Amino acid sequence: MLSLADIEAAQPRVAAVARRTPLEYSHSFSRMTGAEIQLKLENFQRTGSFKIRGAMNRIATLSADEKEAGVVTASAGNHAQGVALAATREGIDSKIVMPKHAPIAKIEATEGYGGEVVLFGADYNDAQSRAHEIEADEGRTYVHAFDDEYVMAGQGTIGLEIAEQCPEADTVVVPIGGGGLISGIATALKGTLDDVRVIGVQAEGASSVADSLKKGTRQELESVDTIADGIATRSVGRKPWEIIQERVDEVVTVSDNEIALALTYLLERSKTMVEGAGAVALAAVLAERFDYDEDEVIVPALCGGNIDLNDLTTVVMRGLVQMGRYLKIRTELKDRPGSLQQLVEIISDHQANIYGVQHDRTSRDIAMNAAEVVLDIETHGHDHIDDLLGDLESRGYEVEILV
Amino acid sequence: MLSLADIEAAQPRVAAVARRTPLEYSHSFSRMTGAEIQLKLENFQRTGSFKIRGAMNRIATLSADEKEAGVVTASAGNHAQGVALAATREGIDSKIVMPKHAPIAKIEATEGYGGEVVLFGADYNDAQSRAHEIEADEGRTYVHAFDDEYVMAGQGTIGLEIAEQCPEADTVVVPIGGGGLISGIATALKGTLDDVRVIGVQAEGASSVADSLKKGTRQELESVDTIADGIATRSVGRKPWEIIQERVDEVVTVSDNEIALALTYLLERSKTMVEGAGAVALAAVLAERFDYDEDEVIVPALCGGNIDLNDLTTVVMRGLVQMGRYLKIRTELKDRPGSLQQLVEIISDHQANIYGVQHDRTSRDIAMNAAEVVLDIETHGHDHIDDLLGDLESRGYEVEILV
Repeated sequence: MLSLADIEAAQPRVAAVARRTPLEYSHSFSRMTGAEIQLKLENFQRTGSFKIRGAMNRIATLSADEKEAGVVTASAGNHAQGVALAATREGIDSKIVMPKHAPIAKIEATEGYGGEVVLFGADYNDAQSRAHEIEADEGRTYVHAFDDEYVMAGQGTIGLEIAEQCPEADTVVVPIGGGGLISGIATALKGTLDDVRVIGVQAEGASSVADSLKKGTRQELESVDTIADGIATRSVGRKPWEIIQERVDEVVTVSDNEIALALTYLLERSKTMVEGAGAVALAAVLAERFDYDEDEVIVPALCGGNIDLNDLTTVVMRGLVQMGRYLKIRTELKDRPGSLQQLVEIISDHQANIYGVQHDRTSRDIAMNAAEVVLDIETHGHDHIDDLLGDLESRGYEVEILV
Repeated sequence: MLSLADIEAAQPRVAAVARRTPLEYSHSFSRMTGAEIQLKLENFQRTGSFKIRGAMNRIATLSADEKEAGVVTASAGNHAQGVALAATREGIDSKIVMPKHAPIAKIEATEGYGGEVVLFGADYNDAQSRAHEIEADEGRTYVHAFDDEYVMAGQGTIGLEIAEQCPEADTVVVPIGGGGLISGIATALKGTLDDVRVIGVQAEGASSVADSLKKGTRQELESVDTIADGIATRSVGRKPWEIIQERVDEVVTVSDNEIALALTYLLERSKTMVEGAGAVALAAVLAERFDYDEDEVIVPALCGGNIDLNDLTTVVMRGLVQMGRYLKIRTELKDRPGSLQQLVEIISDHQANIYGVQHDRTSRDIAMNAAEVVLDIETHGHDHIDDLLGDLESRGYEVEILV
């Protein structure tokens, strides 16, 4: 089983390409929770996520012959970039198989790090089959994203950094997808700090570990559904599963709304951008998914920042809705002069700001002499929204809440 | 005139509340420019901008009687939060006058730091007049946002940090609004490092200093227009103007498109969020608004991160358009079965991803038997866009580019 010595051995190899990421105290989140929140900003890692660490440790420990033959993997995500950069840094050749409709930004980033991208198939499973064919045909080493001791040891170097940067840590909170990250971090922390607690977090829509712990054996989900695509895996790896059972104290889940909220707070309060998977650890703290004491030192690991900027917009809007800061409603006006102005005045009297108005006199779904209006409104919180909607309804508006 | 000793004296006062912000090497921007880019992440500062430093130095140096009487200022921006937190930290009372329609987020943040917000008037000038009335009526000290030696000295502590964190800096790039920030930083750097160059950056739509330097006297603009609202000031202060002439090597301007591009790159590559004013220093580097050598060590100061999350969406879209990564077009279809599918297939053949389609058969502006379609498209760059549009036009589509 993975040991502290494996991770210590990985550290200099990982340091040849990866950055020692900062740990930053958060006044805002400490105030919000009563705990002492220290954010491990692994979203600042090169390639935008922790995956470069494990990939580098795996690739640096290949034999000369294996290096000569090159590596191959399948990934449409952060592992692709990690393998590409690690291979390029070691001077070896890499092929990364991605599904045909992978996002352009991911393809270009992987190519930018020197990987050869092979587009194949409709989904990850197709890509993975193709990658194993390439492994067999070309004698390349397949670099697994998590079910590999060298990969886990590489990810574990984050745990060594946390132990050095924050030896007073009481609780470290770590996302779980395939389980490589938490296996490494838990092994590093339990080997270096006394009485440290390691909590794993999964998305509700991809919670294979919670399920596995309940049933006592490793379970595979039939399908997954979460905005945290970086941890949307159907099961943890075999090796990580053994380590999680022994070294992780508790595994909890968070909803997509909680993830969106945490991601939005991180932008607004900490000015730092994470992807969905990078937000789950803080989401679990904010949603109090596990017990913690006043002044407890908690380190959420923000494991990655590679979110598509178009998706970001959608997630932030969802976060603002959770905060009661954004409201989109549809209602009908009598189609006569002044009726829109009247509605706008009511909203304005409530000190709510109107961002946008769509006013449509031609929609076919409504009565001939009425007009539909859709309003985007900035609000002060859930109570403020209740007041505003109550007032509108008492004045005879039928209001439909769109988000 | 402001001296290095003033700034050194400010440092312990500022450190009582402000954070020593990180300096981070950027692989991405170094690769893009050929220079060595070290980002000064002042957007991580408490209250989200550097303003807390100057406010703290001003407030901490008040006499006991002045502290007893409290402070007042006018601001709808970062200075409001800086004054509120600094005053609360010193145990004194603060009133912050803001225009009536100030953004809710700014009001709540300022109140959250313990300031009493007074909403007054339609714009900043009204609010400022009211603040001076309160100054006179209540004997409070008015805390100016930039035209004050204590405030400039406080901001200058960023320069001391840069000199310590990056003594090899060749060029430090600093935004100019009222001029307090660059006055402090230039004084600190010229006093501590040999041969360091200080470059000031303004938004094209608020470039009073460029104008003043040309005419040799301090000019006031009639109006300002830029997405970088933090530096949208009509003139620099009198005291900063003297210092800029003596200690700043060059002042350049950047366009709003260049600002949007830099802000978007900072999110995508560095996972860090800045406001418009926080992006101008990097924008000037990326747009090569001044000469620099290969391997020159350049430190852009990212001075703040308080951008409204709704505005962020708009700016990011503008940034993606600049990169050739996002395209919104309108065209007409023959209103017959299969015509939309045909168009979608052409776009798909170009490996462009369609984010959104609005298809409207009822618009009154177009021929009776035609239908209008608006498409949001993810593209690979400007060449890719040219290919796609050329192909569409050669097939008889009239395409209007919306953004």
